[in-house]
Amino acid sequence: MDFTILKEMLDRRQFTRLTHILKTMRGVDIADFLEELDHKAALLVFRLLPKDLAVDVFSNLSTQHQSEFSMIVDERELANIVEELFFDDRIDYIEEMPAYVVKRILKNSSEMERRLINQFLNYPEDSAGSIMTIEFVDFKKHISVREALRRIRNTAQQKETIYTCYVIDDERRLEGIVTLKDLVLANPDDKIQAIMETQIIYVNTYDDQENIADVFKRYGFLALPVVDQERRLVGIITVDDIVDVIELENTEDFHRMGAIQPFRESYLHTSVTQLAKNRILWLMFLMISATISGGIIRNYESALEKIVALTVFLPMLMDTGGNAGSQSSTLVIRSIALGEITVRDTLKVIWKELKVSFLVGLPLAIVNLLKIYYIDGYGMLLALTVSTTLLVTVVFAKIVGGILPMIAQRFRIDPAIMASPLITTIVDAISLIFYFRFAVWIMGI
Amino acid sequence: MDFTILKEMLDRRQFTRLTHILKTMRGVDIADFLEELDHKAALLVFRLLPKDLAVDVFSNLSTQHQSEFSMIVDERELANIVEELFFDDRIDYIEEMPAYVVKRILKNSSEMERRLINQFLNYPEDSAGSIMTIEFVDFKKHISVREALRRIRNTAQQKETIYTCYVIDDERRLEGIVTLKDLVLANPDDKIQAIMETQIIYVNTYDDQENIADVFKRYGFLALPVVDQERRLVGIITVDDIVDVIELENTEDFHRMGAIQPFRESYLHTSVTQLAKNRILWLMFLMISATISGGIIRNYESALEKIVALTVFLPMLMDTGGNAGSQSSTLVIRSIALGEITVRDTLKVIWKELKVSFLVGLPLAIVNLLKIYYIDGYGMLLALTVSTTLLVTVVFAKIVGGILPMIAQRFRIDPAIMASPLITTIVDAISLIFYFRFAVWIMGI
Repeated sequence: MDFTILKEMLDRRQFTRLTHILKTMRGVDIADFLEELDHKAALLVFRLLPKDLAVDVFSNLSTQHQSEFSMIVDERELANIVEELFFDDRIDYIEEMPAYVVKRILKNSSEMERRLINQFLNYPEDSAGSIMTIEFVDFKKHISVREALRRIRNTAQQKETIYTCYVIDDERRLEGIVTLKDLVLANPDDKIQAIMETQIIYVNTYDDQENIADVFKRYGFLALPVVDQERRLVGIITVDDIVDVIELENTEDFHRMGAIQPFRESYLHTSVTQLAKNRILWLMFLMISATISGGIIRNYESALEKIVALTVFLPMLMDTGGNAGSQSSTLVIRSIALGEITVRDTLKVIWKELKVSFLVGLPLAIVNLLKIYYIDGYGMLLALTVSTTLLVTVVFAKIVGGILPMIAQRFRIDPAIMASPLITTIVDAISLIFYFRFAVWIMGI
Repeated sequence: MDFTILKEMLDRRQFTRLTHILKTMRGVDIADFLEELDHKAALLVFRLLPKDLAVDVFSNLSTQHQSEFSMIVDERELANIVEELFFDDRIDYIEEMPAYVVKRILKNSSEMERRLINQFLNYPEDSAGSIMTIEFVDFKKHISVREALRRIRNTAQQKETIYTCYVIDDERRLEGIVTLKDLVLANPDDKIQAIMETQIIYVNTYDDQENIADVFKRYGFLALPVVDQERRLVGIITVDDIVDVIELENTEDFHRMGAIQPFRESYLHTSVTQLAKNRILWLMFLMISATISGGIIRNYESALEKIVALTVFLPMLMDTGGNAGSQSSTLVIRSIALGEITVRDTLKVIWKELKVSFLVGLPLAIVNLLKIYYIDGYGMLLALTVSTTLLVTVVFAKIVGGILPMIAQRFRIDPAIMASPLITTIVDAISLIFYFRFAVWIMGI
């Protein structure tokens, strides 16, 4: 977005006009604008906003900017804003802030509020408990639709959603769900009991957010109730938060597949040392693993001394093997993530990859044979050695690439780590063994 | 899901009990159950379902099963179901079915309906027009809230959502948006005009679905209006469809990054020849590109003849270079996809990757040096040659990995193709050149 006009107004101190425009904008856009300003200007603009909008803007600032902001606004003002945040945003904020800021904010909170915050901070990262919010509409089943609607009208402003409402019993156990659509369509004198849906899909506070995202994707819900061990309703998760979860989980998979320790801050906001830390372990591990390939070459040094030309085709064989394996592992990893295949399909995957590998391996091998013999001008025996190795490597790579993610899944390891880098390292070693064996057999060295 | 109990009931012909249970299930789950049955049993179960549920189930069947189903149910029955599908599902269905099936279904449609369907079939794939639906609530701004609510009650059953309603003028141009929440909270005598939101974010029929998903992610909407060139409201897109779009776009990126031509059917539903087709082009291209590396080796054959030991470290150098480059390209590709970095950040990315590359490259090079000299027992000059090459390769790989996706983005090519496989091929060639140069300089061959 381009904020040039807004910045000009700010420079010319046209605050009335600026305020007028800001009021027509959405919180997330104003947050972007603030992040482009220096502290003083940002604070000035922030104070022009009506309270509701200010809270919305604040919840949309990046963690880093929220933290900077918390240092420059005064205590009273900050407490007022944090107070008004939706509960899930408040928890996110408190989690990220340094302890002394949190202390300042919570000073004025009630005992009950503080206990609740503590409970939320204790839910495991990525659990339903850690992403749910407590601002939902609930009522008992014996009230009428008219009463329910009145209730919604009175409390709607503080609720994250009013489109799905929850029916609970005296022990706060979840008994049913009523959508605002049901309520609007029902006769006002109907009892909630008569119109509520009792076949409820719900999740537990300790369920993993990835599984929760799957439930949303499967059923197309707008919100999902979260219950504790006693099936008491403790929170809800809304679809807009789940959209973030989906992208987060995908990012995690991309990172793992690129041999990077996953992290959550944006690339530009992550420090150089942190970025280095997230990469070095995998690089080191893969580098050391690659020495196995070196060891194999060392074993055949005498063969190589006789026919140095064998070395010429090493990169092509290793790269093609790696690529063939990555293709299979990428497909299988993604299909597992989307729930399209499970461990039960392992044999189907192997059989499929076997057929595909011959279909792609044969043309590759033939092109290779012709190129080495006719274009490069090497002998037919060398051409045959390289092409046979290529075919066998491709077949082998595709089976390994297809099967390793399934094995990982079976042992509850994230299949995403069985991606290109690891497959390449494994396939490299195997293709070298094939290569030298075939060289010995075919060329008789 | 486990359908054993349902299958038992089916075998024992306990249809009343089975029907009773099916009625408590969701469409998507019943669809999964049907897909596990043979045609005859599936048709039998399908006919047990009440009409609404049957339609829901049908829309959740995979394309393949929808197609098979269309062959076995009778014409009247099929037309009845298709008639009841939401418009976007109907379009999806018609797009996938063979022409003679479509003809059978549309035989009884009105002229207007057929024209509308044709218009929808003509929207480009992945455009807003191709994923929108026409079942939305609209009214004029001068009616009262009470009237609007009455209107909603009368038409709600046929609408994809009633939570966001659209205010249009006499030319059907979009003037405002009213949520059901606004309506429920407002005074029934208020005019729509007084409560509608006029700062509307909307998309155009030809906008790409990836950009639309970004709008949803940014603003957390439940629905988004789609207008034509004259700003006339022609459809809406709901968040549940966008969740599918997000996963589809991610799958496309995963496929591209794994050197696969992207495709949409699930892995198990895709034929072996199709899978082979989607892989062979990239494999062939990368295989031929890899011969550049072979050519470099050929150039230095005499050097290799003198020191065959140089070959031992080829796999490690090539793999580590490839991995270092993939890490950077993965991060940058993902950050571009999430909108966290743009072409304007190119210099920042290069500078960051340069620093990171030294931070990870130096420890790798040192470990290598020590290992080659002390553990492998090679001479110090060879150890120095390999380690220097490793450091330079890592630095180079990280810069290339960071910069190529940015260049692709600049020229509107999908950055995802600048992933591991292509980077590896490029880095391989460069690392070989460094390797032999350093060997000549350091070891004096």
